[in-house]
Amino acid sequence: MKKIIIAALFGVTALSLTASASAQVKPEDQIRFRKAAYSFAAWNMGKIKANLEGAYDAAQVKAAANAIAAVAGSGLGALFAPGTEKSIGEQKTNTKPELFQKGTEVAKLAGDFAAAAGELVKATDSGDVAAVKAAHGKVGATCKACHDQFKL
Amino acid sequence: MKKIIIAALFGVTALSLTASASAQVKPEDQIRFRKAAYSFAAWNMGKIKANLEGAYDAAQVKAAANAIAAVAGSGLGALFAPGTEKSIGEQKTNTKPELFQKGTEVAKLAGDFAAAAGELVKATDSGDVAAVKAAHGKVGATCKACHDQFKL
Repeated sequence: MKKIIIAALFGVTALSLTASASAQVKPEDQIRFRKAAYSFAAWNMGKIKANLEGAYDAAQVKAAANAIAAVAGSGLGALFAPGTEKSIGEQKTNTKPELFQKGTEVAKLAGDFAAAAGELVKATDSGDVAAVKAAHGKVGATCKACHDQFKL
Repeated sequence: MKKIIIAALFGVTALSLTASASAQVKPEDQIRFRKAAYSFAAWNMGKIKANLEGAYDAAQVKAAANAIAAVAGSGLGALFAPGTEKSIGEQKTNTKPELFQKGTEVAKLAGDFAAAAGELVKATDSGDVAAVKAAHGKVGATCKACHDQFKL
């Protein structure tokens, strides 16, 4: 039952929680890895922003979009298992405890993030800078939507 | 001149240091983001390992391989700019200072990592689990090669 709840938590296609894969990650490492994943995405979002505001390097923007989509598709739900609601030792979490009770809402937000990231990749493929800018803004909005509700 | 040295540092195709993009990232954030990138890659390497040792979920392995390749292709060299040789405040670095003097060697190691990650993606596309196992081992070897030389 627990597994079903966790699997539903971030209901994106790429998430599949096999027992073997999820059993390997200690709670404190789940916190460390999820923070790392979002930080890596944030760096790549920032790179695209800098490109849109300055000299535009299409290859760099495409690589950054791929990185964001890879984060969104990496099955982050596996890093929010029960036991990771609070900071553990040096691993501080900024996740509000409510996230762990609102699976349906979180799954919707995670799905929105993955969908927007996919659109961003498509926009970078098209080479249309205005489309990239719009798609980047939409990804940012999905980040903010989740932060507003579930980030301390 | 400095910019040329940094650009040469991680000489993978996806790396392109536009002044606008690199100027945005403070030294302490460079350390934070590079640690995040490698942690995110490590989590995905661990997921593939767990799949190879337990129940094999092809979609999860493919997503993990894409994530590792996205890290390798994200232009990490931009996060090793001068001024990031030592820990800054709470941002501790495990990078040996020698890395910053051995651009050619580091570029080779980074190129090996990117190439091996690309082969891992190809292997997951093929659906051949033995090929994935071999390719995963080769990526791990490129991680280790760099850690042995340049990680404290």
